[in-house]
Amino acid sequence: MRTIEFRDNRVVILDQTLLPEKIEYIECREISCIAEAIKSLRIRGAPALGITAAFALALTASKNSARSRKEIIEALDETYKVIKATRPTAVNLVWALDRVMEKVRASEDPSGTAISEALKIYEEDLEINGKLSRYGAELLESGDIVQTHCNAGGLATGGIGTALGVILEAWKQGKEIRVFADETRPLLQGARLTAFELSQADVPVTVITDSMAGFVMRRHNVTKAIVGADRIAANGDTANKIGTYTLAVLAKEHKVPFYVAAPLSTIDLRAESGEDIPIEYRKKEELEFFSGKRIVPPEADVLNPAFDVTPAEYITAIITEKGVLRPPFKESIRRAFE
Amino acid sequence: MRTIEFRDNRVVILDQTLLPEKIEYIECREISCIAEAIKSLRIRGAPALGITAAFALALTASKNSARSRKEIIEALDETYKVIKATRPTAVNLVWALDRVMEKVRASEDPSGTAISEALKIYEEDLEINGKLSRYGAELLESGDIVQTHCNAGGLATGGIGTALGVILEAWKQGKEIRVFADETRPLLQGARLTAFELSQADVPVTVITDSMAGFVMRRHNVTKAIVGADRIAANGDTANKIGTYTLAVLAKEHKVPFYVAAPLSTIDLRAESGEDIPIEYRKKEELEFFSGKRIVPPEADVLNPAFDVTPAEYITAIITEKGVLRPPFKESIRRAFE
Repeated sequence: MRTIEFRDNRVVILDQTLLPEKIEYIECREISCIAEAIKSLRIRGAPALGITAAFALALTASKNSARSRKEIIEALDETYKVIKATRPTAVNLVWALDRVMEKVRASEDPSGTAISEALKIYEEDLEINGKLSRYGAELLESGDIVQTHCNAGGLATGGIGTALGVILEAWKQGKEIRVFADETRPLLQGARLTAFELSQADVPVTVITDSMAGFVMRRHNVTKAIVGADRIAANGDTANKIGTYTLAVLAKEHKVPFYVAAPLSTIDLRAESGEDIPIEYRKKEELEFFSGKRIVPPEADVLNPAFDVTPAEYITAIITEKGVLRPPFKESIRRAFE
Repeated sequence: MRTIEFRDNRVVILDQTLLPEKIEYIECREISCIAEAIKSLRIRGAPALGITAAFALALTASKNSARSRKEIIEALDETYKVIKATRPTAVNLVWALDRVMEKVRASEDPSGTAISEALKIYEEDLEINGKLSRYGAELLESGDIVQTHCNAGGLATGGIGTALGVILEAWKQGKEIRVFADETRPLLQGARLTAFELSQADVPVTVITDSMAGFVMRRHNVTKAIVGADRIAANGDTANKIGTYTLAVLAKEHKVPFYVAAPLSTIDLRAESGEDIPIEYRKKEELEFFSGKRIVPPEADVLNPAFDVTPAEYITAIITEKGVLRPPFKESIRRAFE
């Protein structure tokens, strides 16, 4: 199952909001369709969002290829703005947009360049996932009970995923791993997507509510925690799905190693620390209603941050395609970019 | 709004599973109806369960009052067994059953005694709530931002509640308090019930998912955490709704005082520590489905503990009707029972 594809001048997106009940694809011919899919989390996960952003530029390029160089770049700039505005925390969006536009501006064939660079980002992601997963798998051993939050699997990337990629690679190597997946309220990516991906690969997975994370870590002998990332600051502070920080605090209290798995494109060197990472607040309805049913009385207020920031001191290591980075992260991150 | 009542030989129970959408009462004339209401959490909360158990005996007594003393006691013993089996963690159930039966066995008028003792337990609960809330309110000050988990309000008791009683009493005294309520998956007592009760009393309340607990504590200046209890061991280890332990770990990490509010009837002196408190595991469907919609793929496993145990070392104080108990709890609890 492909998460995202660019073919026949369409961006084809697996609609993750319908999983695990339905496997349904959206075929976007317009940028507005892609922007909506990002905002509604039909596609999500930092690396996948980078690919989606690049594909949005490729789509614009393919539709404008007959126009002048200047007109093509203007159309691409317009797409850049629309896509950049969709989700403020995910750095891969901007990273991919910038990378494609830099090549486009240096090229005589802007539309061809946009398309080929977007496809290159996609291909590279497959490769990066593979490398990162192999580095990460070395940290896991047979018998490990791994806790994870949200979804950092193939559905979040072009390849086999980051946090889940590590688990799947270890499993493929014959290591016996069991996984506890937090359901990840409010949108249940853990219950719906992580449990789905691991089950498909026959990895034993048990879904728990986020409120059970502490109990399970204490009573069910969790040995490792591993999550993905939406943006990592230059000092290692990591923004990821809301609830990640709670899991990190629990891991510290229970002396469980806490790993972040993410490609270097998720590291934002312009953000010195977590303070510089904007937190996306999403609409209150995501908490107030579930499947059309009101679960919070209308008189009560609701807060809906989509991400939290886990300070670097809670993180044991960051697993990247350039190897496993260890504290002090300011140093190891700098070296990884050399 | 009354949570529970015994009138006209019926036990009238507010069906909390329908809140906040509908206010609907169940009128139980049979013990099976009461047992079902307890198992389905139509009524829940340690003190309210004690009252419900006592009312179940009162109902049996009222239906058998014309029979012989021996027959009445036999019927009461049967009810005792059925009700005791409904929920293994809540100690108030057994406490109330034992208290009524002890009086019954010593009485010449078993049916009259069962009814009057049950009503006495109910009246006492109102009084205990009041006392406990006044002791607890002294711990809160204007400007406090209080985080709570699950529901320990009037809906969980006969009176104004334990943890919420403390907040409501402080509010009534003119202290400006704001509350963050964890939604409390899987059954959302925080979103549905706590937010409802606080809103009714005009206390500002913001509902968050359980996964947001760490973020909110860190970024929204939470100053106190306060929860109820389902069973407290002689050393202060406290069983409460799943997620309480996670909140306690977060409170420790953020140096936020963590208070437990509960009547002495919730303390089980026969349990030396949390190790002696059985944990109720509930049916998997509570996690697998939401409002009829499947949210976990059928291939994945699910774990559904209803409670966790927070070790005494995470608890700043236990607020009871005999005053605020401080560590070492083994001592202060013993003294409270003298």
